Amino acid sequence: MSTIFSKIISGEVPSHRVYENERVLAFLDVFPLSRGHTLVIPKEEKATIDQLSEESAAAIGRALPAICRAVMKATGASAFNLLQNNGAMAHQAVMHVHFHIIPKYEGGEGLGIGWNAGKLDPVAGASLASAMASLLRQGA
Amino acid sequence: MSTIFSKIISGEVPSHRVYENERVLAFLDVFPLSRGHTLVIPKEEKATIDQLSEESAAAIGRALPAICRAVMKATGASAFNLLQNNGAMAHQAVMHVHFHIIPKYEGGEGLGIGWNAGKLDPVAGASLASAMASLLRQGA
Repeated sequence: MSTIFSKIISGEVPSHRVYENERVLAFLDVFPLSRGHTLVIPKEEKATIDQLSEESAAAIGRALPAICRAVMKATGASAFNLLQNNGAMAHQAVMHVHFHIIPKYEGGEGLGIGWNAGKLDPVAGASLASAMASLLRQGA
Repeated sequence: MSTIFSKIISGEVPSHRVYENERVLAFLDVFPLSRGHTLVIPKEEKATIDQLSEESAAAIGRALPAICRAVMKATGASAFNLLQNNGAMAHQAVMHVHFHIIPKYEGGEGLGIGWNAGKLDPVAGASLASAMASLLRQGA
């Protein structure tokens, strides 16, 4: 399960690197939605976050606040979206976990968001939350 | 800086809870984009992820893979988006850090994504990545 990102991690494919530690690499997206669009990836080769080890996921979480601050300071952006897609149907193109940091600018440049929200049915919600909680207690 | 989420954490406002530990709470969004739309929040009261402590950010990261697996198993969804908005301009409504787990279904139900990508200019990219990396080395 090797993708272009494995070659970016190894250095075989060049990238504009922003940050690196033992478990995490950050670099600029070559097809940015806006100026400063940055990708943060685990070095672990997993396609989706549900498959990722807790250690890699924690390392990405830990690295995100400082990387986001650097993206904001370097670009002057005051708002941004963090997006991580799982599955081709959910707009994932490279099958190696990646978090997009996408600055949002006054002119609208950045991530486009379609938000067609409903209202949670309390009975269905109670049943669904209970099912999820039960799976987590069993070590989902 | 207290929001409705502080009252959900304390239990003053009820919610359909999915998962909780010392630093993290997960519960169903009452205005879901799709069935199983779940929010994962830090108990720490911070508006945006760039302001969040590394400890809280790491704890959320660590919790995400299992919560995502539970959402997928309980709903049957095979694809999902993870989205975390920072700033009103970036579609943030509640000013307490929250990660949306949004299942994406065959019919299109879920997050709408507008993706108007450009191409990174190599010279501008090198300069921007270098500025970000420098900020991070200085402890951004």
